[in-house]
Amino acid sequence: MELALNNLPRTIAVELEGGVPSIVLVDQCRLPGELVYLRTSDWRELVDAVKTLAVRGAPAIGVAGAAAVMLAAFEYADGDGFDRLLEEAARAIAAARPTAVNLVWGVNKAREVVFEARQAGASPRETAEALYRLTEDLIAEDETVNRRIGSHGAALLRGLAASGTQVRPLNLLTHCNAGSLATAFYGTALGVVYASAQEGLVNRVYADETRPVNQGARLTVWELAQAGVPVTLQCDNMAASLMEKGQVDAVIVGADRIAANGDAANKIGTLGLAVLANFYGIPFYVAAPMSTIDCSTKSGADIPIEDRDRAEVLPDPIPGVEVRNPAFDVTPYRLITAIVTEEGVWEPAR
Amino acid sequence: MELALNNLPRTIAVELEGGVPSIVLVDQCRLPGELVYLRTSDWRELVDAVKTLAVRGAPAIGVAGAAAVMLAAFEYADGDGFDRLLEEAARAIAAARPTAVNLVWGVNKAREVVFEARQAGASPRETAEALYRLTEDLIAEDETVNRRIGSHGAALLRGLAASGTQVRPLNLLTHCNAGSLATAFYGTALGVVYASAQEGLVNRVYADETRPVNQGARLTVWELAQAGVPVTLQCDNMAASLMEKGQVDAVIVGADRIAANGDAANKIGTLGLAVLANFYGIPFYVAAPMSTIDCSTKSGADIPIEDRDRAEVLPDPIPGVEVRNPAFDVTPYRLITAIVTEEGVWEPAR
Repeated sequence: MELALNNLPRTIAVELEGGVPSIVLVDQCRLPGELVYLRTSDWRELVDAVKTLAVRGAPAIGVAGAAAVMLAAFEYADGDGFDRLLEEAARAIAAARPTAVNLVWGVNKAREVVFEARQAGASPRETAEALYRLTEDLIAEDETVNRRIGSHGAALLRGLAASGTQVRPLNLLTHCNAGSLATAFYGTALGVVYASAQEGLVNRVYADETRPVNQGARLTVWELAQAGVPVTLQCDNMAASLMEKGQVDAVIVGADRIAANGDAANKIGTLGLAVLANFYGIPFYVAAPMSTIDCSTKSGADIPIEDRDRAEVLPDPIPGVEVRNPAFDVTPYRLITAIVTEEGVWEPAR
Repeated sequence: MELALNNLPRTIAVELEGGVPSIVLVDQCRLPGELVYLRTSDWRELVDAVKTLAVRGAPAIGVAGAAAVMLAAFEYADGDGFDRLLEEAARAIAAARPTAVNLVWGVNKAREVVFEARQAGASPRETAEALYRLTEDLIAEDETVNRRIGSHGAALLRGLAASGTQVRPLNLLTHCNAGSLATAFYGTALGVVYASAQEGLVNRVYADETRPVNQGARLTVWELAQAGVPVTLQCDNMAASLMEKGQVDAVIVGADRIAANGDAANKIGTLGLAVLANFYGIPFYVAAPMSTIDCSTKSGADIPIEDRDRAEVLPDPIPGVEVRNPAFDVTPYRLITAIVTEEGVWEPAR
């Protein structure tokens, strides 16, 4: 299959002009209607972009976390109390969203750079510049990591698609957006799709709309269509009927935090898909960078689950009606066929 | 629990003024924003109301099917070709939606009345009047049937709620709207909820929003709040996390057609809930009148599934993106703990 990955935007980029850094983000609240970029030099605006989901996806908000610390460092470089103000900013940034460990991972990467630079006698401005280089590196590294995840994932799907000496291209099901838009570029779960599609292993991707924020209906289908991968949108509750008809060869999703035992937090609805895949005997793959694995979290029970605004589910309140809106659920490792990382494939259930 | 069933509207009613019959329907496309009634004397408008889901729910469209034949009979009573025109109308009415067998059941009830009346020498107008009485009877009978379903269902839930000599009120999960709004009055699955809540057996009902038409978010939560039953709305993809937390004691849904072996077609997403309930060891109940059971359909594989307009799922098309929108799925009898009808409880898996 001829892909058109050049049609995909860079999700997050960094620029330095006249000593002033900016972060440039695809505004994901505006897709698929229009491709608009947000540009900011203010770390608070970047935190807001994380909270409003203008930038989302565990790997992308990992980069955004480090980038926000970098913006704060430039802001505070010329005044008093650099170290204290920077650490206060780092704490606020790390707390923007609770579930994805990558955000804390990105902030901690920045903290390490600050610590080393300051220990080595660097000035606040030199420290800010070191953080700028870190941000550039994390963006480049994220794409590299994703392409390696894609390559490991394609090897898995190659086995699944093999039918005697022939290849039978696969129908894949994904949930939410673990695509290029969830990363600096290329994607995790969709990185596996791209790498596999380039080998002719993919017939079609089914994308769940992913209520209540509709990342599937707004982002995944747009991204896959841009890239030239055949894609069909369905409502979240249609996955069972699709599987029952034998039209899903594998499920592949991303993750926001993976505990030490392999339990994986991901967008709400992932757990249900894993139970369905288990019932219908369909492989269930999680694709995520090593930065998503949090060995300090023993099991899924220890992963904090973000509750979001009920207005996402029910914009016009109805008197007497309560709403629940957990943004994530946790899939137990027993239901995960394999976790695909840049380091290789881990089968937690074995 | 003190219920306020008087706050629920009559979903479908019939009137005769100056020899002209009208059907009066709650316009379910306008809920929960406003409670508006549609009034029509034209069978074609009633068929449109069935197609646009202004009236929906298997029992309600069963009544609507008979009522539409009745309106056609009045229209054709004074002209030529009464029997031929009426049968043509009956065929068009029966074809308005394919999955729910109740529509055909209602049309066939009307056909029987027409056959008997004409055999007995009744004039077209007398035949139309007989159909009017049938419509009145079906409306009254529907409520009676639902109250009996409720009573049988409450007996089941009583056993589930028993905890030693105490009662532990249950958390129930429902999908779509099998409520008073899906029937002439009272409801099937929600009829069981009402009958059980009046006995103090219900703590709370969780309602799936039920994409893409949002019958749960628009109708079920409104109806339950009107009736005074504690209700929480969630997205369809949140059911697994709720079950995993142990917050669902039973699932109860309606049905649009039940095959001879107990396989049950119901709103898309029901199958997924049944698989989840099976995985988590939660009872899964289907509540439906005997008119929903179609013994001429051997198994679920023979039930036609309505595919609806893709615009229900994706109002603004995205170039290159396909959409699937099956309105129903089929839950195999093995996953159904019990089917609750007005005649009693059937455990198809035994």
